[in-house]
Amino acid sequence: MRLSRYFLPVLKETPAEAQIVSHRYMLRAGMIKQASAGIYSWLPLGFKVLRKIEQIVHEEQARAGHIPMLMPTLQSADLWRESGRYEDYGEEMLRITDRHGRDMLYGPTNEELITDIFRSNVNSYKDLPLTLYHIQWKFRDEIRPRFGVMRGREFYMKDGYNFDLTKEDALHAYNRHLVSYLRTYERMGLQAIPMRADSGPIGGDDTHEFLVLADTGESEVFYDSAVTDIRLGAREIDYDDKAQCQAVMEEFTSLYARTDETHEEAAFAEVPEDRRRSARGIEVGQIFYFGTKYSEPMGANVVNHEGARVPVHMGSHGIGVSRLVGAIIEASHDDKGIIWPEGVTPFHCGIINLKQGDAEADAACEALYKALEGAGLEPLYDDRNERAGGKFATMDLIGLPWRITVGPRGLKNGVVELTSRRTGESEEMPPEAAIARITEIYAGV
Amino acid sequence: MRLSRYFLPVLKETPAEAQIVSHRYMLRAGMIKQASAGIYSWLPLGFKVLRKIEQIVHEEQARAGHIPMLMPTLQSADLWRESGRYEDYGEEMLRITDRHGRDMLYGPTNEELITDIFRSNVNSYKDLPLTLYHIQWKFRDEIRPRFGVMRGREFYMKDGYNFDLTKEDALHAYNRHLVSYLRTYERMGLQAIPMRADSGPIGGDDTHEFLVLADTGESEVFYDSAVTDIRLGAREIDYDDKAQCQAVMEEFTSLYARTDETHEEAAFAEVPEDRRRSARGIEVGQIFYFGTKYSEPMGANVVNHEGARVPVHMGSHGIGVSRLVGAIIEASHDDKGIIWPEGVTPFHCGIINLKQGDAEADAACEALYKALEGAGLEPLYDDRNERAGGKFATMDLIGLPWRITVGPRGLKNGVVELTSRRTGESEEMPPEAAIARITEIYAGV
Repeated sequence: MRLSRYFLPVLKETPAEAQIVSHRYMLRAGMIKQASAGIYSWLPLGFKVLRKIEQIVHEEQARAGHIPMLMPTLQSADLWRESGRYEDYGEEMLRITDRHGRDMLYGPTNEELITDIFRSNVNSYKDLPLTLYHIQWKFRDEIRPRFGVMRGREFYMKDGYNFDLTKEDALHAYNRHLVSYLRTYERMGLQAIPMRADSGPIGGDDTHEFLVLADTGESEVFYDSAVTDIRLGAREIDYDDKAQCQAVMEEFTSLYARTDETHEEAAFAEVPEDRRRSARGIEVGQIFYFGTKYSEPMGANVVNHEGARVPVHMGSHGIGVSRLVGAIIEASHDDKGIIWPEGVTPFHCGIINLKQGDAEADAACEALYKALEGAGLEPLYDDRNERAGGKFATMDLIGLPWRITVGPRGLKNGVVELTSRRTGESEEMPPEAAIARITEIYAGV
Repeated sequence: MRLSRYFLPVLKETPAEAQIVSHRYMLRAGMIKQASAGIYSWLPLGFKVLRKIEQIVHEEQARAGHIPMLMPTLQSADLWRESGRYEDYGEEMLRITDRHGRDMLYGPTNEELITDIFRSNVNSYKDLPLTLYHIQWKFRDEIRPRFGVMRGREFYMKDGYNFDLTKEDALHAYNRHLVSYLRTYERMGLQAIPMRADSGPIGGDDTHEFLVLADTGESEVFYDSAVTDIRLGAREIDYDDKAQCQAVMEEFTSLYARTDETHEEAAFAEVPEDRRRSARGIEVGQIFYFGTKYSEPMGANVVNHEGARVPVHMGSHGIGVSRLVGAIIEASHDDKGIIWPEGVTPFHCGIINLKQGDAEADAACEALYKALEGAGLEPLYDDRNERAGGKFATMDLIGLPWRITVGPRGLKNGVVELTSRRTGESEEMPPEAAIARITEIYAGV
């Protein structure tokens, strides 16, 4: 993309309403604009990051064998009356009346709707196991929305639902989700620690939240510092292998790691003192096993091997897709702006032309731009007629991990400058070497 | 995908509520399930087609230089009061009150919101031309929703907005959209004819609707049959070339083609009698030029070359993404089911194992499946333990354009059968030849 043809309305001033760094930088970098309280438009740069995160979620769900579909945003109140949650849910549920006076709601979650789809179509254990998921806009009418997309009212979320014949199978689904979520977050450059949590209005006993450590997190968390040394890394996972998924789950959840909702001083005291940590965390996902909580009242039964009709065992699993954009910024920034991990960066590389209008510099930038596009990458070329200082400041603010700077002086020596946004380190090299380096970096992402 | 692990709840019976063929087949093929009146869940197969259509729209918008972003589903009523449309819009607008008593609405379209984004960020002619678009769920509270996704209440739509300094530039944007829409529809295997139409509540004088001819269309249309002979085809388009876009626009819109809203008997009578046609059509898109209708009342001004502040010239452009799924089926089916055009098919090819459990047949199917996946294609392998007749019926119903049938008898002679869903013609060939043929077909899509 050529910046002269893009829509990147960066702000010089920090908007007064933004209290946390991700909100400030998302506004300043022209990623979002508030449409009304807790509701945002995703401007082009923000939308690109949102889509990258969505794509990673889809890819990792596919790898785990989960099946994508899409449920609508608006739901009939009838199903929620059937499960008993219509009254329970409180004022965070946005209740709507249509022109015929029917009670509707903007879905905050989809247990009822998916259970209805399941019970209408599945009758036999032969069709199990089954995990369906979707990524869709949700609404929670927060009384005091704040922190930008971190605690908005309209938010984009992946929610998935597993249907299994037995508790044992459902617990495998639980473990499979835990493992696939770990991989999902790692691909985004995030460490998200599974912590034993409280189930809230979803219900059920088994639940873990995934928390990213950050000073601005809304949750207080307590953990054994050894938990932060564990990575899934590149290990091969067979998501059908119950023992392997169980082992990974145990590896990641055996050490003490809890939110304040489930924190127990006595258990925490058993952690060696030099490894006891309390910190703040941002919740970026949660998994639940809740057995037959929805299948029993809603009649989601299948015929088992013995010919008896039994309610299915279910769980649900969520990833906050729009919230992740903010969480990644909270975890990866400096005082100049955002620092995108390679896995989610909106453009792979920036190109700065130090002397727009100089024939040689223009030609070198064009050649770089086309070569990077030809390598399947998306560069952002700042081809505006602006001062170099302004171009650097914008590029630092929007946080592309790599930048190539092109100027007449370097070109005389046949070199351009490749700079890492994270370390700030620069290296001069011929343009071809810079292209090769960038291509190699992204080949591994 | 292996069918044994997929969720494809095909129905034997035709649901009584479905009056038109696309609605019937979408329900029977397990593509959608009604969640409430005019609101559908997209089951896995339907979701795959929806995403393919969305992807084609994104790709063609990118080619035309239009910039993707995303506006929220819920909007504040305030902006609509500013444009004067809040009261005008009537009962099709779903009005919502949040917990603080603020008036909100579920966006049926986004002229106000995008104009607000524009006026907050753009001040100079130097930032023009600019075309922003998004693909987002919309809601129109139809009094009598029907025909499945063709006339639902919650629907998925691409809407785009151009901002230009002059009327001339805005008319180029109009032409550019017309050309890019033609390409978009052709890639989906559709002929959509631009017809002069009425602008309705969007406003403006210049507007064309794109109509797909189909007996079940909601619009009566009148046209010169010669218009159906024109194709964009593979010609190279430079979307920055005003003259070229203008010429294509004229080529496609000079012949008589109008909806009943703008039909004029006198003008129609000038069409040679043997080329006069009246038929029914499905509206799958519309483009508008409406000048300063929104920019003036909402103060979307830029400084022009002379330093004066002038309102920008705007247009908007829509493609009914979810509706297209139905429109494609209306235009492409037979009495056995859907016939997907290659550009939008949910899976590229079906594989039918005539004798599941037969070691040789199973191995041949597995090898085919992996080879097709290795070639970057998505096969759907019917690996269920079902009778061949049922497998054929399901495959015909869901409409994959190509099917490979594998059975012990053919394998003895080293062949499988490749069948075209459209023609019904089958040909025996070695598995490698079938793979090569399928790969070649999709290389051109």
